[in-house]
Amino acid sequence: MITLYDCATAPSPRRARILLAEKGITHETVQVDLKAGEQLGDVYRKINPLCTVPALRTNEGVTLTSNAAIAAYLEARFPQPPMLGVTPLDKADIADWHWRIEFEGFMPIAEAFRNNSVAMLHRALPGPVNYEQIPQLAERGLARLQQFLSDLNERLRDRDFIAAQQFSIADIAAVVTVDFARIVKVRPDERHPHLLRWRTAMGQRPTMAL
Amino acid sequence: MITLYDCATAPSPRRARILLAEKGITHETVQVDLKAGEQLGDVYRKINPLCTVPALRTNEGVTLTSNAAIAAYLEARFPQPPMLGVTPLDKADIADWHWRIEFEGFMPIAEAFRNNSVAMLHRALPGPVNYEQIPQLAERGLARLQQFLSDLNERLRDRDFIAAQQFSIADIAAVVTVDFARIVKVRPDERHPHLLRWRTAMGQRPTMAL
Repeated sequence: MITLYDCATAPSPRRARILLAEKGITHETVQVDLKAGEQLGDVYRKINPLCTVPALRTNEGVTLTSNAAIAAYLEARFPQPPMLGVTPLDKADIADWHWRIEFEGFMPIAEAFRNNSVAMLHRALPGPVNYEQIPQLAERGLARLQQFLSDLNERLRDRDFIAAQQFSIADIAAVVTVDFARIVKVRPDERHPHLLRWRTAMGQRPTMAL
Repeated sequence: MITLYDCATAPSPRRARILLAEKGITHETVQVDLKAGEQLGDVYRKINPLCTVPALRTNEGVTLTSNAAIAAYLEARFPQPPMLGVTPLDKADIADWHWRIEFEGFMPIAEAFRNNSVAMLHRALPGPVNYEQIPQLAERGLARLQQFLSDLNERLRDRDFIAAQQFSIADIAAVVTVDFARIVKVRPDERHPHLLRWRTAMGQRPTMAL
């Protein structure tokens, strides 16, 4: 049985959670209490030395410790429905936007949050090593987030999906990222009509309630 | 004919350059003069609005504007030899380490360099938007780079390749990243014997001279 190490309130494992659901993959879920610091405890550290969620234990008994690994594995092991594209150009478009959403959207939000929250003192980055907060990085994160929302809105001007004219992992990552922005009190608004239209349409998928 | 928009002295396009060579893909190369700011000029901006290299114009006439897109496209279009793995678990291991090398290695070096170099004033991030330098981020980048070299050395303790017991895009990214560290005056040393052994072995591949 596949096991997802998850945290119901956290954005990174939500990506894996939605991906599993979109592919209809039966699995068990183990909640890891990030607020209590369970990811840094001895028990979870043995499961994932990187001290992050998601982690996914496969049928073969291997534990995958990043969304990158989980997506590559699930797509190869359970190809239908495809979430990374099928043709070379579709794969390229989806990989491109998946990467942009991560670097230009998700990371700036994480920077804005982790470098400014009292709860994240000394924890400016996830993982086993502590790094001090950098207030200027929180500010830059907020500025980059506005740029990202504007770019994503423009991208969606004449599209129903982020990439390759099909629902893909890029849409999953984008929904999770846009929703995650609430943690720094940012939501798409009247400046982002195409983005709002797309987010409403995505909300029709039952998996987006996960 | 495939065209690579390249810059011979820059690390990001080197990843695409080596990947093309390892797959034996015939292509043309156009040099973009990053030192002169050609990537921000009107001509290149029409080719790649993100103002970055590498970009790759495909046989179909589509321009791919990130290493993520280029790798996904080339692997699907020219599957042999595989660089992203073949089995689900190998694909996962390679994607995992490819991601870690990018986030834990390449980005810290870029942060250490771009936030501390006079040549990069106002250019703390690549792309069309200017962001101010954050000196603390340069310092953090150097600290994270030491952590990365230590982790990579440990990873290679009993391995000839970064992931999945085979040469892959993770090795390409790791060679480019380890070599890129020179820009902030960091090189693996006697604390990293496994990393040095692997780098020497990689140097036997003619593509690593590119």
